[in-house]
Amino acid sequence: MTKQTIAFLGTGLMGAPMARNLLKAGHDVVVWNRTREKAEALTADGALLAESPAEAASGADLVITIVSDGKAVADLLFSQDVAKAMQKGATFVDMSSITPQEARDHAERLAAAGIDHLDAPVSGGTRGAEAATLAIMAGGEEPCFERAKPVLEALGRPVRVGPSGAGQLAKLANQAIVAVTIGVVAEATLLVESGGGDPAAFRDALKGGFADSTILQLHGRRMSEGDFTPGGKSSIQLKDLNNIIAEASSLNLALPLSEAVRTRYRALVEEMGGGDLDHAALYRQLKEREQDLS
Amino acid sequence: MTKQTIAFLGTGLMGAPMARNLLKAGHDVVVWNRTREKAEALTADGALLAESPAEAASGADLVITIVSDGKAVADLLFSQDVAKAMQKGATFVDMSSITPQEARDHAERLAAAGIDHLDAPVSGGTRGAEAATLAIMAGGEEPCFERAKPVLEALGRPVRVGPSGAGQLAKLANQAIVAVTIGVVAEATLLVESGGGDPAAFRDALKGGFADSTILQLHGRRMSEGDFTPGGKSSIQLKDLNNIIAEASSLNLALPLSEAVRTRYRALVEEMGGGDLDHAALYRQLKEREQDLS
Repeated sequence: MTKQTIAFLGTGLMGAPMARNLLKAGHDVVVWNRTREKAEALTADGALLAESPAEAASGADLVITIVSDGKAVADLLFSQDVAKAMQKGATFVDMSSITPQEARDHAERLAAAGIDHLDAPVSGGTRGAEAATLAIMAGGEEPCFERAKPVLEALGRPVRVGPSGAGQLAKLANQAIVAVTIGVVAEATLLVESGGGDPAAFRDALKGGFADSTILQLHGRRMSEGDFTPGGKSSIQLKDLNNIIAEASSLNLALPLSEAVRTRYRALVEEMGGGDLDHAALYRQLKEREQDLS
Repeated sequence: MTKQTIAFLGTGLMGAPMARNLLKAGHDVVVWNRTREKAEALTADGALLAESPAEAASGADLVITIVSDGKAVADLLFSQDVAKAMQKGATFVDMSSITPQEARDHAERLAAAGIDHLDAPVSGGTRGAEAATLAIMAGGEEPCFERAKPVLEALGRPVRVGPSGAGQLAKLANQAIVAVTIGVVAEATLLVESGGGDPAAFRDALKGGFADSTILQLHGRRMSEGDFTPGGKSSIQLKDLNNIIAEASSLNLALPLSEAVRTRYRALVEEMGGGDLDHAALYRQLKEREQDLS
């Protein structure tokens, strides 16, 4: 692997351990964060601190961002002049979770300036960020992906899924699978309990079969133990589902299961005040509905 | 393990390899099947052939059935006099997939005659039956389960999930998870494809994460390759979903995701004539609906 100069913009809960893994891999990393202290902390690990995002980006082979949403990415690129500061032939890798349309727009505007763009959102949470085991779903041109790949491998497992925007679509699809699987595990748990069955024995019986999954075992346990300390918050799950449905309807796609589970998350978050509970708390929403009906 | 005398009623696609595994484990197995030839074939493996289900059942420590539905089980027990022929203290293990209510009825009627009942439907298909790796979801009294357990271990992995009927409920819950997971994998695949993404790369990217499952990898591949040679048929999936919804509504349980996926399987089977296709063909139904809308 060739040593690269990397600008890392956004060193929050996810970004900080990711920047640290790039330093460990031997790269020169220049960091910037809106809250300066969070970036400053990384200088102890060997990072250089930039005074502005544009300063970080100038001279970088690769600019990596992981910030809250599409607006924050656009602000960095076009209001805070990261795009202008980047050298021709450099690559912009956006690891934030934003909409596919926003990612395509950014790619197009950067292409006009001779800068390559990769949308590369991640899955795996802070634990995956620390352990460098993130699933990285990348959208963009093949040669651009191949150039960024050795760097991204210091963060997890990068896979190119398609052209610009496809990484963000894959991330949405990932979230749809998580939400709907949680929903049906809740339904299955209710069904088993309704006949006096033991959900833990049920999960044990299903181990290794077609119905088995990490969600059955992990979130299923949270449901039957009533432990909804958040791993993933229900409010975030609802936000993801809203993005999924919005994207799908702009594509004229019908996603009946994602829509059905969105209705339930909306009730959990907006009617039951469960936004800060783990997304496995959907079980509680389904159970209460049942009690209303009976 | 103590050698037992076992009557095995129903030696079809699932039952024949299961009876063979009991013989391999050293039990005396007396077989009967409605189509006589299928039972006769097992005499080559050391089984004894009975002339009637009642003849097979008399003198057996354990009577095992695996037949098509609840009516077929009731017919064996009460019309063809298996219940009458069984000795007091013997155990009836019904491995057929029938409704939880039917299982509870059978248990009650047999209890009155001093005969223990276990509902113990299986998951894992003919491959699991042959390899003795079936998931066995058992409902019934604990001591009865403990007595039957060493015998059932020759067929797969028996787990007691609760009282009578709970095994059948667990099987329905298992089927709900399978159907809904197939549904959301179809939605995710459509979403990825809509942006020009590669579904195979998408499945690869998700490996080992929260959204991963056997269904994502196996049925997801069938979807993107358009290969719907049946492992599990869509018509059977629809039948299972009808049973799940019927059971749920008798329990006053709302299962919105199971209901939503049932609607789609109904369209696939009844409107598109896809009953003989693999249940992964739900993808095709969702895709065609999209084309209708556009």
